[in-house]
Amino acid sequence: MITVKDTVHDHIEIDGVAADLLDTPAVQRLRHIKQLGTVQLVYPSANHTRFEHSLGVYHLASRALDHLGIGGKQADRIEAAAMLHDVGHGPFSHNLETLTHRRTGKYHDDVAELLATGEVGAVLRAHDLDPDRIAGLVAGEEKYGQLVSGELDVDRMDYLVRDAYHTGVPYGTIDTERFVRELTFVDAPGDAGARSRPRLVLDEGNVQTAESLLLARALMNPVVYTHHVARISKAMLRRAATDLLDATATTAPELRRMDDHDFLAAIRDCRETDDLSRRYDERDLYKLAVWAEYDDVPERIHAADHATEVALEREIGEEAGVDRDHVLLDVPPEPSMRESTARVTVNGEVRRLERQSPLVSALRTAQRNQWRLGVYAPAPATDRVGRAAADVLGIDSDGLVAEARAAMPTTLDEF
Amino acid sequence: MITVKDTVHDHIEIDGVAADLLDTPAVQRLRHIKQLGTVQLVYPSANHTRFEHSLGVYHLASRALDHLGIGGKQADRIEAAAMLHDVGHGPFSHNLETLTHRRTGKYHDDVAELLATGEVGAVLRAHDLDPDRIAGLVAGEEKYGQLVSGELDVDRMDYLVRDAYHTGVPYGTIDTERFVRELTFVDAPGDAGARSRPRLVLDEGNVQTAESLLLARALMNPVVYTHHVARISKAMLRRAATDLLDATATTAPELRRMDDHDFLAAIRDCRETDDLSRRYDERDLYKLAVWAEYDDVPERIHAADHATEVALEREIGEEAGVDRDHVLLDVPPEPSMRESTARVTVNGEVRRLERQSPLVSALRTAQRNQWRLGVYAPAPATDRVGRAAADVLGIDSDGLVAEARAAMPTTLDEF
Amino acid sequence: MITVKDTVHDHIEIDGVAADLLDTPAVQRLRHIKQLGTVQLVYPSANHTRFEHSLGVYHLASRALDHLGIGGKQADRIEAAAMLHDVGHGPFSHNLETLTHRRTGKYHDDVAELLATGEVGAVLRAHDLDPDRIAGLVAGEEKYGQLVSGELDVDRMDYLVRDAYHTGVPYGTIDTERFVRELTFVDAPGDAGARSRPRLVLDEGNVQTAESLLLARALMNPVVYTHHVARISKAMLRRAATDLLDATATTAPELRRMDDHDFLAAIRDCRETDDLSRRYDERDLYKLAVWAEYDDVPERIHAADHATEVALEREIGEEAGVDRDHVLLDVPPEPSMRESTARVTVNGEVRRLERQSPLVSALRTAQRNQWRLGVYAPAPATDRVGRAAADVLGIDSDGLVAEARAAMPTTLDEF
Amino acid sequence: MITVKDTVHDHIEIDGVAADLLDTPAVQRLRHIKQLGTVQLVYPSANHTRFEHSLGVYHLASRALDHLGIGGKQADRIEAAAMLHDVGHGPFSHNLETLTHRRTGKYHDDVAELLATGEVGAVLRAHDLDPDRIAGLVAGEEKYGQLVSGELDVDRMDYLVRDAYHTGVPYGTIDTERFVRELTFVDAPGDAGARSRPRLVLDEGNVQTAESLLLARALMNPVVYTHHVARISKAMLRRAATDLLDATATTAPELRRMDDHDFLAAIRDCRETDDLSRRYDERDLYKLAVWAEYDDVPERIHAADHATEVALEREIGEEAGVDRDHVLLDVPPEPSMRESTARVTVNGEVRRLERQSPLVSALRTAQRNQWRLGVYAPAPATDRVGRAAADVLGIDSDGLVAEARAAMPTTLDEF
Repeated sequence: MITVKDTVHDHIEIDGVAADLLDTPAVQRLRHIKQLGTVQLVYPSANHTRFEHSLGVYHLASRALDHLGIGGKQADRIEAAAMLHDVGHGPFSHNLETLTHRRTGKYHDDVAELLATGEVGAVLRAHDLDPDRIAGLVAGEEKYGQLVSGELDVDRMDYLVRDAYHTGVPYGTIDTERFVRELTFVDAPGDAGARSRPRLVLDEGNVQTAESLLLARALMNPVVYTHHVARISKAMLRRAATDLLDATATTAPELRRMDDHDFLAAIRDCRETDDLSRRYDERDLYKLAVWAEYDDVPERIHAADHATEVALEREIGEEAGVDRDHVLLDVPPEPSMRESTARVTVNGEVRRLERQSPLVSALRTAQRNQWRLGVYAPAPATDRVGRAAADVLGIDSDGLVAEARAAMPTTLDEF
Repeated sequence: MITVKDTVHDHIEIDGVAADLLDTPAVQRLRHIKQLGTVQLVYPSANHTRFEHSLGVYHLASRALDHLGIGGKQADRIEAAAMLHDVGHGPFSHNLETLTHRRTGKYHDDVAELLATGEVGAVLRAHDLDPDRIAGLVAGEEKYGQLVSGELDVDRMDYLVRDAYHTGVPYGTIDTERFVRELTFVDAPGDAGARSRPRLVLDEGNVQTAESLLLARALMNPVVYTHHVARISKAMLRRAATDLLDATATTAPELRRMDDHDFLAAIRDCRETDDLSRRYDERDLYKLAVWAEYDDVPERIHAADHATEVALEREIGEEAGVDRDHVLLDVPPEPSMRESTARVTVNGEVRRLERQSPLVSALRTAQRNQWRLGVYAPAPATDRVGRAAADVLGIDSDGLVAEARAAMPTTLDEF
Repeated sequence: MITVKDTVHDHIEIDGVAADLLDTPAVQRLRHIKQLGTVQLVYPSANHTRFEHSLGVYHLASRALDHLGIGGKQADRIEAAAMLHDVGHGPFSHNLETLTHRRTGKYHDDVAELLATGEVGAVLRAHDLDPDRIAGLVAGEEKYGQLVSGELDVDRMDYLVRDAYHTGVPYGTIDTERFVRELTFVDAPGDAGARSRPRLVLDEGNVQTAESLLLARALMNPVVYTHHVARISKAMLRRAATDLLDATATTAPELRRMDDHDFLAAIRDCRETDDLSRRYDERDLYKLAVWAEYDDVPERIHAADHATEVALEREIGEEAGVDRDHVLLDVPPEPSMRESTARVTVNGEVRRLERQSPLVSALRTAQRNQWRLGVYAPAPATDRVGRAAADVLGIDSDGLVAEARAAMPTTLDEF
Repeated sequence: MITVKDTVHDHIEIDGVAADLLDTPAVQRLRHIKQLGTVQLVYPSANHTRFEHSLGVYHLASRALDHLGIGGKQADRIEAAAMLHDVGHGPFSHNLETLTHRRTGKYHDDVAELLATGEVGAVLRAHDLDPDRIAGLVAGEEKYGQLVSGELDVDRMDYLVRDAYHTGVPYGTIDTERFVRELTFVDAPGDAGARSRPRLVLDEGNVQTAESLLLARALMNPVVYTHHVARISKAMLRRAATDLLDATATTAPELRRMDDHDFLAAIRDCRETDDLSRRYDERDLYKLAVWAEYDDVPERIHAADHATEVALEREIGEEAGVDRDHVLLDVPPEPSMRESTARVTVNGEVRRLERQSPLVSALRTAQRNQWRLGVYAPAPATDRVGRAAADVLGIDSDGLVAEARAAMPTTLDEF
């Protein structure tokens, strides 16, 4: 048995298949991938990695299994899935995900391949576990996959608390120990009359426990996860990655297997990306040119696919008379809230949280209110790019940036 | 200057009039009044007192004044009010408040008298401060009274963080330092077209900061402040206090000046209250006989005054055939949410939080959903009293208690 | 099973005999006895009680038993002893201990009686446990008594961390989880060739773990446990207790069964003690008249018994021309360091920590350097009493108090 | 003014020259250099960087200056030095220091050049500050340089607390706020009758405060800073760096300007170092072949210079019949304890801590007891290399490794 000292869960005990997986290159690689990517430019202490997060997810899964009374091979499977749930991440985690995803096909196919091959595959088979089935659990399949990836999964419990600890922001604090004690499986029908199957729910008396998960995310979102400085630098890195793929022999699958070190070294080393990498390294970031609310953005822009976005960027650049790399269009996905379909037990009956808690729809509205389309450009070109972008995207341009800046937190804003 | 080590704010520096007030009997007395009263029966560590809370409120007021650039006599006044804001509390703080209040007239008249007399009055006058004006600030009067008692006051900032620290519940964590940095005064009209006057608001970019205050309270409320065990024991102490006033020479004003020690000793020492005090001491508490939702309670019960409540208890007792002390009717006040009228600056405009944040009305609904009327009785009589109470109060009796129990947190429930 | 939320250990699970003991009056009474007595006058947040400490000690004992693989009746016995280890404490814990002890005979006989009678005795017998044997474990007897009371017991692990948490002082932080994992039993000879028996030791590689326990205590001692303000107020309460016994019908056994509330109410209520109680309540404390180092105090004073101390106080009072209650002589016991005989495993060999760690003798010296005899008196009489005491006690009087004051922490000093 | 949210000090306010320095490439580069280098292999959460540490050192310096009443240009100088004190660090901080230092001359000459040139030099001159003088302060010169680099400097206060926070080890917790309040300057003679000059000392009543600094370091040392896994991986990286310099065109000055990313990418990319880099990446580390105590190591080995060490490694490799890269000799510098000459005020007199506190010499002994010479080799060759090394180095070989392993913490040991 291995014991690891963790900042969030104190001593984490690892044994069985999880202990063997710990020593595989695929898991050790996560040491070199920051959990929060570019958020470190806003919160300097946010340097924690996918590695310790994976240990934490394993730990919480293991605690929940204890309380659920699940052992044996079933527990092995879930613990393996918890330990491996992030091995598919590329450098800078979610920051480049859409890019690597777009160019290389399905994320989950990639995970399935990673799990079936190399040392990970060998370890799984040595413990008589089917890699495909573990990959399915990672994707939330089967009854017990809900623990690893679902509305009430241990993944989000760990990251909310861990991100709060390592940013210093006090908003992500949920009672993880209470969660792992109160989770249970109950047969319940799905949405729209889908047939009844075992669902992971919170036991009686835990409406607040479930709500705390949503509230923690709602408070962390604008202050941490979607802070404009983190979004701008993320967009810059994504552009650098695109340029790297276009300008060099590096392929998308190679990019996906890099860690943060490889990637930063690669974009520093490439003439086509050295301006962006220098700017990233020295925190000489692009600024807001447009920062538009959800309802001010035309439907066709919300619906744009990647090729359309690229075309729009080119058009904006031409109209503004700037280099294409000096226009970054950043259209976040539609607001969503997976936790809202979490289920809680109320008076002996299993109910969807969104039907029980008036907070859910309010948070949905709040999330939509916080949604912003961004266009970013180097400081001297901000105004020009802003006007051109408003024109090309069909957004009313009056005071777009001024309002945007006014809406930003003043604390930490210039940092 | 006095420096005090505090669990929440680390070193607190106290000087000027606040330092002199610290040594008065009225402030030292707060050492012996628990901040959370009977919550200690649910969370054993929750033994913090009104004294350290008062130091914390003084500290945050002082930090906010620094950031607002307010000094001199104006600052003296506010700091004195912060230090003194709780001296009017009787034993077990809010637990007996309605009782002492009901029998002795206005709480604020009492505070005004406390501030004008004795050592407190002498200290204030020695610093050339008018006790009546300080009492006004404690009540939230004048421009600067909003800092001490208002929608964004430092009182609630301190208690949310302090109560979280001393219960171990992770929900009350707000960023107090951000609050004291972002508070500002702006001339703004009041509700319903009231004339414009200086209002304490949060600066641009702090909608989330304001929301965090409401969310912290919304999460702490059911888990800490209105936990049914805390409410039951509070109702028992209130009954004991009533019996003490009725059975002995103790007067309401005397009761109000007791601290927790005096009060517990008094009810242990009195034949009429020794059963209740023994039950409190040994945690042999009454149980839920009725636990009814807001909409299930007839309007006339919501509107009942104290005399009516007493008559209802008597009637329930008679119908159930139990001693009057074995029926405790607990009708909480109407749900309210003072923070909802807090003001924030959005795009340069001062707006009421409830108009800006979809969370406010959701939390209002949640609060109403959490509201419960309680009837409590000793364990063997619970069923009988429950049935009688449902009958007398006009509440549909089917499964009232069963549902109530089911709605309770299972963790800590039996503790 | 009962689950309690604790500030130090998060969720504590209590079941079996411990859960039944929790509801006995003897254990519930500990809610009303502060862990650190008068230290609350120095650190306002230090209001935690013997009750949550007892839960913490039970929790750590239970964790250690898990790691040691001990279950069944043996575990029941130890967990019962852990839960009950403090039930013998009188009001203000250690503050009045010498007094109640002196007047009523052996502390451990008293505990044995408490455990054999009333609800505690009934619960123990219902679980088929012998109260006498549990009392023996509380006193550190038998192999497993070392876990509850010994050089490496879970009692001190809990109180160091808990006292640090509730004072805000960062020095008491030890890694309790590491301790409970590394404890083991090994047959080893005792001191001076005593026969070999099972001893609780720390496993290989834990010299630092053991040292951290001593260092935490060494840092907490002067800053918290023996802070002069805590000592002065403790001496005042002890005198009040003596006067109460002398002036009223209250007996020592009755005093011992009081909790903090009873005791404070009793000394407020008694004419002979109302000055001391008022001073305590209002923090209008006596001041240092003498504060003498170990080597400056004559041997006969170190060796004085209680009767001699009383005679000395009287003599000092007469020489200074002050009331006897205005002279408090406070001679702490000889410095000792129980942890120094803790055993650690080094290169496969069990060694006493003091032979392995050069820190032990240094800490012994430091402790002796920190030892102070105190004489306390009301402010106006301090000089007169100081001169008289120096004369009567045979201590060189030059600058005794000046040096003493200079040696005191300036932060918090006047608080 | 810039406000940054920090995990350790909460909000840090940065203005004046420090704010301008923040945006220089030299300071931003510190974001990419881990504070604890290879310690991350033992404590997975220990990913904090020199950047946030530099902000913390600036913050504490700024707090101390406030309390000392120092402002104006003097304060600017010290705050600039605090912000810049680590810009000279190469990749993996101290891990490669001896290497870059050895090959490139004096560390402080290098810092002086860094401060005089580029954007840092420009910022300093724009604020009318002399870069040479700032470099002097970084090196501890002048009266106020003691604050930045001395026995009681703010550097070690920040790193002890920060390293504790980010490893999860509870031992490094000192009261930084108390330190910055109690520091003062007093004219005092130096060692061996050196002439009197202003020295940074702790005010009266702070012997324990000073001791806490030593104790924190003494506890952190074996558990964190010199943990054998951190030392082994550090030696591996040092060897990789040497090989990189030998095998490629990379020069020592270039190596020194790399950050962690550059360095890891470089050794992954170089055929001569790819085995070591793969081992580092996959945590497939060398193991202990020798782990010898101070007194078991011959004087000539203690005194060996770098060239001698290289020769010894070669000799051991030849005797064991293994590749030279499979033998890593790690001789730590002589134990030292800079804090021991810290000065404290006792009874109005300034004394060296080591004369006042019996702990200092004990800690010195403890440190010497903890000192270990290490020889590391890949697992299959450990025994052979161990025997050869014992022979070549003249260390008694009996059970060297067995004892070594036995002396290691079992928790985390295999991790």
